[in-house]
Amino acid sequence: MSVYAERRKKVYAYLEETGIDVFMIEDTEGRRSPALRYLSGHPADALLFLLRGGKAVLVPWDVLLAAQFADADEVLPYNDFGRRPPGAIRKILGDCAASAAASRFALGAAAFRFALGAAAPYPLVVKLSEELRKDFPRLQVLCDAGGPDAFITKLRRVKDAEEIQKLRKAAEILNALLEGIEEGIRGGSLVTETDLALFIESRCRSLGAEGTSFPTLAAGPRRSFGIHAFPGYTAQRFVAPGLSILDFGVSYEGYAGDVTLTLVTGKPSPLQQTLIRLVEEAYHTALGLCRPGASTAKIARAVDEIFARQNLVMPHGLGHGLGLEVHEEPFLRGSPDADTILEPGMIFTVEPGLYDPQAGGVRWENDVLITETGCEVLTRSKILYKD
Amino acid sequence: MSVYAERRKKVYAYLEETGIDVFMIEDTEGRRSPALRYLSGHPADALLFLLRGGKAVLVPWDVLLAAQFADADEVLPYNDFGRRPPGAIRKILGDCAASAAASRFALGAAAFRFALGAAAPYPLVVKLSEELRKDFPRLQVLCDAGGPDAFITKLRRVKDAEEIQKLRKAAEILNALLEGIEEGIRGGSLVTETDLALFIESRCRSLGAEGTSFPTLAAGPRRSFGIHAFPGYTAQRFVAPGLSILDFGVSYEGYAGDVTLTLVTGKPSPLQQTLIRLVEEAYHTALGLCRPGASTAKIARAVDEIFARQNLVMPHGLGHGLGLEVHEEPFLRGSPDADTILEPGMIFTVEPGLYDPQAGGVRWENDVLITETGCEVLTRSKILYKD
Repeated sequence: MSVYAERRKKVYAYLEETGIDVFMIEDTEGRRSPALRYLSGHPADALLFLLRGGKAVLVPWDVLLAAQFADADEVLPYNDFGRRPPGAIRKILGDCAASAAASRFALGAAAFRFALGAAAPYPLVVKLSEELRKDFPRLQVLCDAGGPDAFITKLRRVKDAEEIQKLRKAAEILNALLEGIEEGIRGGSLVTETDLALFIESRCRSLGAEGTSFPTLAAGPRRSFGIHAFPGYTAQRFVAPGLSILDFGVSYEGYAGDVTLTLVTGKPSPLQQTLIRLVEEAYHTALGLCRPGASTAKIARAVDEIFARQNLVMPHGLGHGLGLEVHEEPFLRGSPDADTILEPGMIFTVEPGLYDPQAGGVRWENDVLITETGCEVLTRSKILYKD
Repeated sequence: MSVYAERRKKVYAYLEETGIDVFMIEDTEGRRSPALRYLSGHPADALLFLLRGGKAVLVPWDVLLAAQFADADEVLPYNDFGRRPPGAIRKILGDCAASAAASRFALGAAAFRFALGAAAPYPLVVKLSEELRKDFPRLQVLCDAGGPDAFITKLRRVKDAEEIQKLRKAAEILNALLEGIEEGIRGGSLVTETDLALFIESRCRSLGAEGTSFPTLAAGPRRSFGIHAFPGYTAQRFVAPGLSILDFGVSYEGYAGDVTLTLVTGKPSPLQQTLIRLVEEAYHTALGLCRPGASTAKIARAVDEIFARQNLVMPHGLGHGLGLEVHEEPFLRGSPDADTILEPGMIFTVEPGLYDPQAGGVRWENDVLITETGCEVLTRSKILYKD
C-alpha cells in the first residue's frame, strides 16, 4: 500500500466515525490545500474526493501531470466538468446516489453528508448548498473548522517516517547552501541582496530541491528593520556595515525547510549588541525547552519574558511547523489558543528576532525535530560576523 | 487627494448606498486580497477597515512597512490586538459605537452592518458572527459574493491612468527581457530551464521590477506537454530539439505582466507544425476580436471552434485580466458565467495553447490593452525558431 493510501485509510476511518459520506479537498490558486498532496501525491490544482468506504477520486486541472504524480483510485479530467467544481461535485454525488453501496442515500433513508474544506468561502458554501439541494434534496453540506480538515491537519502535525526523511533532506540542502553563503560572503562573490537570492535560487536546484519554499528575503542594513522586507530582495548591498537578515527556505519533494541568518558587518553599536545578545539568549532558552510534553505557548512566553525585561517586543511568533506548508502547525506563540503539546515527530522553526527602525534587525532561525527524549536541530544557521 | 483616497471615495459611496457601516479587508498568508494595496498602498499582511462616512483604518502586521507604504487615516499595530483579527474588529466596532457619528448604532435605532470580504472562510464567519453578537447585539455580519468585494473587483477591472502607466512599465520590462532571452538562446548563454529562470529573476530587478509576478515556468521539450510544468524549472535543457515553453511575468509597483513564448528547436514534426499553426491562427483571431463592446466569452468560443475543427481542446482559458493580481477579471473563457463586455482600460492576456503528451506544447501569450477604438498589444512575445 502506498504511503498516500496509508494516510487516506486514516481519513476514511474518520469519515466512518463521523458519518461523513464524501469529503472534498480543493486546491486552487489563492486557496491552497496541502491535504491534496499529502493524500494523493498530486502537487497542486485539483479536487480530491474521499468517499466513505474507501475510494479516492481526483479531478486534476492537468491530467498529464496527474499521470506523473497522482495516487488515486480514479482520475477524472476537470475539463469534463467545464472547469468548474459544481459539475464535478454533481457527478461524484450522483455516482454515490446510483451505487448500491450508498443505497441509503438513494432511498432517502438518511441525510447524505457532504463535507467541504474549512477554507471554503462563506458565499460559496451558501450558494453551493442551495444549488446542490435542488438535485439532492436530502443532502447535508458541512463546512466546519473542526471537521475532516482539522483531522488531517492534526495528522500532518506529527510527521511519518517518509516525511521526516524528506524534511531531513531539505535541511541538508539548506546546510549546504549556508556553507556556500558563508564562503561567498567572506570571499566577496556574494555582495548584494540579489546575489544572495540568486545564489540560493540556482544552487538549491542543483542540490536536488524542487525550488525555494518561499521567496527569499535578503535585507541589507537599510532594510533589516522589517520582519518581512518588501520587496524580498533588491539591487542594494547585503554585505555592508550593520545588521543584515537573510531568510530563506527550500522545498524537497514538497517538504519545506526554513532558516534565517543574521550577518553582522563591522563593529555593532551598543544597541545592536544588545539585540544580538538577547536573540541569542532567547534562541538557546527556547531550544532548551523543546522536548516531548512541552507546551509551545510556554516556550514562546519564556522568550517574550526575556525580551520584556528589556522593554522589547518580538513582533512575530517564535516559530511555526514545517511540512508541506512552510507555515503550519504547531505554532510557537504566547497566546493560549495556539498552544500545542510537543510530540516526537513534530518539526518546526525556532526563530527569535528583534527589530529597531534605526539599528536594524536580528533574527536567528533553525529547524528543530522533536525526538523521543528531546530535540535535534536539523539546520545550522548562525549569526555571522564579518569585519 | 492621493490615488488611494480617490479610490476609497468610490467605496465609501458604495457603503453609503448599500447601508454598510464597516467593511473589513483582510490580506494574510493563504488569503490575499489585492484590495488592500489598491485602496491603501500597503503591499501585504494587514486588515483594512473602511468606515462609512469616509475613514480608513489600517491594522498592519508590520508598522514600519506601513510607515513606508501606507495611505490611511489611522494606523493601529496588529500587535496591539494579540495578532488576531477579532481584537482589532472589536476595537473598531467599539469606536464606532462610541462615536457620535454612529449614534444610531449606539442607540440601537437600527442594525449596525459589518461586512467581510467574500473570501472569508465559512467556519470563520459563523464563529465571528456568534462572538461579536455577544458584545454588539444589534450587529449584522455580512459576507456576500455580491458585496463590497465584488464592487471593488469591478472597479479594478477597468484600470485608471496610474495603473495603466504601471502596467505599461511592466510590459516594457518584459519586452527588454524577451530581447535578452532571444539573444541568450541564439548566442548559447541560455541553455537550461534554470538558465532561463535565473536570467529573468536577476535581470527583471535591475530593470526596475519588484520581482517576478509568479514563479517562472520554463519547460523544455520533455515537459512542455504540461499546462503548468511542475516544478517550474529544473536543471534539464530548455534549448533542445522539440517544443519548449517559457511562461513568465514581472511585477512593477505591484502590477503584473505575463507572457509566454514557445521555442521551436530543429524541424518540427507534422503534428507539431499543426499545433503551431492552430495556435497562431487562434492568437490572431482572438486579437482581431478585442475591442470595446466585444464579449470575452465570444472571443474564447471563436478560439475553441478553431481547435474543435481539428478535434483538439485547449485545457485552459484563453486569457485573464492583469493588475494587482496576475489572474483577475476579466476572464476570457467560453462559459457564459465568465462573460465580460470589454471596455477601454481593461488589460488582459491572450494566450491560446495546445498540448500533446508526446509532441509537447505550444502557447503564445501577450498582454493586451483595450483602447477607445480597438486594442494595443503591450508585449512582444513570439514563437521563436532555432535550428
